[in-house]
Amino acid sequence: MNDLLDFNKEEFVNALNNRDVNKIRDIVENYNLVDIAETLNELESITDYMFVFKYIPPEYTADVFAYLDQEKQESLIKLLTGTQLKDLIDNLYSDDLVDFMQEMPANLTTKILQATPKDRRAEINQLLSYEEDTAGSIMTTEFIMLKESMHMKEALAKIKSEAQDAETISYLYVVDNSRVLKGVLRLKDILFMEDNQTIEDIMDTDFTSVFATDDQESVANTFKKYDLNAIPVTTKDFRLVGIVTSDDIIDVIEQEATEDIHMMANINPLEDEYMKTNAFKLALKATPWIILLMLLATFTTLIMNQFEDAMLAVPCLSIFIPMLIGTAGNNGNQSSTLIVRALGLNEITKKDYIRVCLKELLTSLLVGVAVSIVNCLWIYFLGSTGIIDLSASPISPFKLGLVVGSAMLICIIVAKFIGSSIPLLCSALKIDPALLSGPMVTTLVDASSIIIYFVIATKLFGLI
Amino acid sequence: MNDLLDFNKEEFVNALNNRDVNKIRDIVENYNLVDIAETLNELESITDYMFVFKYIPPEYTADVFAYLDQEKQESLIKLLTGTQLKDLIDNLYSDDLVDFMQEMPANLTTKILQATPKDRRAEINQLLSYEEDTAGSIMTTEFIMLKESMHMKEALAKIKSEAQDAETISYLYVVDNSRVLKGVLRLKDILFMEDNQTIEDIMDTDFTSVFATDDQESVANTFKKYDLNAIPVTTKDFRLVGIVTSDDIIDVIEQEATEDIHMMANINPLEDEYMKTNAFKLALKATPWIILLMLLATFTTLIMNQFEDAMLAVPCLSIFIPMLIGTAGNNGNQSSTLIVRALGLNEITKKDYIRVCLKELLTSLLVGVAVSIVNCLWIYFLGSTGIIDLSASPISPFKLGLVVGSAMLICIIVAKFIGSSIPLLCSALKIDPALLSGPMVTTLVDASSIIIYFVIATKLFGLI
Repeated sequence: MNDLLDFNKEEFVNALNNRDVNKIRDIVENYNLVDIAETLNELESITDYMFVFKYIPPEYTADVFAYLDQEKQESLIKLLTGTQLKDLIDNLYSDDLVDFMQEMPANLTTKILQATPKDRRAEINQLLSYEEDTAGSIMTTEFIMLKESMHMKEALAKIKSEAQDAETISYLYVVDNSRVLKGVLRLKDILFMEDNQTIEDIMDTDFTSVFATDDQESVANTFKKYDLNAIPVTTKDFRLVGIVTSDDIIDVIEQEATEDIHMMANINPLEDEYMKTNAFKLALKATPWIILLMLLATFTTLIMNQFEDAMLAVPCLSIFIPMLIGTAGNNGNQSSTLIVRALGLNEITKKDYIRVCLKELLTSLLVGVAVSIVNCLWIYFLGSTGIIDLSASPISPFKLGLVVGSAMLICIIVAKFIGSSIPLLCSALKIDPALLSGPMVTTLVDASSIIIYFVIATKLFGLI
Repeated sequence: MNDLLDFNKEEFVNALNNRDVNKIRDIVENYNLVDIAETLNELESITDYMFVFKYIPPEYTADVFAYLDQEKQESLIKLLTGTQLKDLIDNLYSDDLVDFMQEMPANLTTKILQATPKDRRAEINQLLSYEEDTAGSIMTTEFIMLKESMHMKEALAKIKSEAQDAETISYLYVVDNSRVLKGVLRLKDILFMEDNQTIEDIMDTDFTSVFATDDQESVANTFKKYDLNAIPVTTKDFRLVGIVTSDDIIDVIEQEATEDIHMMANINPLEDEYMKTNAFKLALKATPWIILLMLLATFTTLIMNQFEDAMLAVPCLSIFIPMLIGTAGNNGNQSSTLIVRALGLNEITKKDYIRVCLKELLTSLLVGVAVSIVNCLWIYFLGSTGIIDLSASPISPFKLGLVVGSAMLICIIVAKFIGSSIPLLCSALKIDPALLSGPMVTTLVDASSIIIYFVIATKLFGLI
């Protein structure tokens, strides 16, 4: 990254400490507000950022405010006078306003609503009522609407008069008298209008829109599929209520990826950033799955309990169990991770299920053969050189290598089968594969590997 | 999603089968080209999509082409005549053109370059020379440049004359005679220009730009930090060479998340989508880590080998090993996943390392106490009810519960310590935490858990 003008944090903090109002104004006007907000977020003293807030030009306060941390926003709201708060709210986009109101204690929400003009209050309340993670909850309501009958001049005049408040003017939306969405057009289309043309003549009627109640993940998928820059959001009867822009979509994509990553590691998704989640919340998100998986591991314990005789007769059998179930688990996890992610990105659809299973079967054969040959030789090497002490066990290093290596082969094939079929099954049953695949694959792979190992050792190779 | 005009795939395929040119043209003109391309991707016969290609209006062919699968693109390029290919290339954005050229066999690349006008060939060759995953490799070169001295009329005239070719006209870039980037402005700024103002007066000089050689991940981070819609890309001497737009960034974010997810599951990132990667490639990406982890598991085997006496004296000890190392592994994996993802999103910086370790320590105590109490009671229950057969082992269910439960507590604390410190260490050493954390955490947690278990059983509780 190459800022031609590099933001100098120290200079800004110095100006602040010296209460140098002119310098502060100068910096705020010339540098990116995200950097200003980031510096304010690091300040400890409320009076410091209150000072900045008082003296920076009013047209910048809203933008800086939108980038502050939640706690800083709250303490500012508490300190602002009625007029200051009104000014701030006037300059904030409704989606930013609603974003932080959702996290705030009720008394501050009330303070904000009281400072909001009546007509906008209705809009804010409407936005607050959308469920989390819906299109309605992430959309912005500041966009420009045109009428089908408008000519170029009228349209440009409307755009000019509303451009300062709108979040984007690159896309313009055409509605009828009931606010039903009729068409979409781009600002550049208007520049090319002929004098005798109306908006109706040039608007695009083959647009894609979403409902306010749609899940944000499906909105993001539509957005990506059609490479959009903004997507209109409507009610069920197609009245336009907002637009979702690419910065909202970027947030959604990151958030959904983080959720999937957490779920794959058996953690209930955090509501907040990791650094803003305290140890108690973390423990609460992590413990249920840990306990469930621990209890499910009882199956493995019970199976091993049945084979205690074998372990007593050939004590060195047990020492390879972590290696065996570890390798099988890694294979199962690889398959389920690949498939869960591909399902999440819509790369796999129903008609691909059979192909996926065949692909994983072939992969498991290739990986299995390679890994078990290495394993067999390695164990033979460990045993014959005496690195592993086999004196207590009536078995040759060669035979031990064969037992563990052949068990490894079958375990890998079974593990990849389990790892690929569970996510597909979840998806077919409309259960989020990221949520359930981890625990189910782990439990099934562990238990099946132990059974395979001991059955091969006792039945196939006749140990004990 | 609510397309007002729902695309009817069947209708399209029927029109195609009947070779109904008018119907096909009608559909192509009225529906989204992404849907058209998606349908073509599903057709088996080359003559079918060649037919569509021949008869759809030329202004649409390039857009449809850009959304086709690689294999379809290749077979089309092979079949197109020189003139057809020239028309297609003329209408394609350079970044789309380069995108598929990078994947194509050399003879087709040559065919394309030969059909490209000389001046554009230089540009294409330049784009092809950027390393993969750099800003240069994802940027588009179709954007509009203005001069500082321009007045509103001149600027608008230039915008109008170039608007059809540019990927975006929402952002405009101001350069000097050496093409050095001087400022950025938005189309709406121009609409508000006064007659006596020049571009220099209204352009934003505090813009953020990136170098063509910058890594795409850092470009995406800058893009997100400043909530941009497009970011200019320059050479090291600040000459403007391209822009990166939000759709490119969305692709980068998804791709990087997928890479991280794969690496966390010990798979070398795939170059292509899962469905387009065959079993041999999958095995090649998966096997090295599986073999490495299998070999690393030898530590656990060697440690257990040392404790064979204990396992012979109290056979039921071994049957809890999968439960114990599984639980410890899950805890280590939870911590490392949370931290690797937070590092990837820049939520954790160097100064947070101590805080992260303390947070994880407290979390591990909370999780550890909860899980080991449940574990202790559960094992006592399994043993005292006879669900687990303890007849071969000289130990009471109560004592067994205490042994396993207390080992569990220490193992969880150690596992979370390992799981949190390894990613932080990788990050401090500038190694990608997503790459190495998985294998290292697994190996260390397994080995340490086995030691803890047997030391507690033999030394603390005096078994054997």
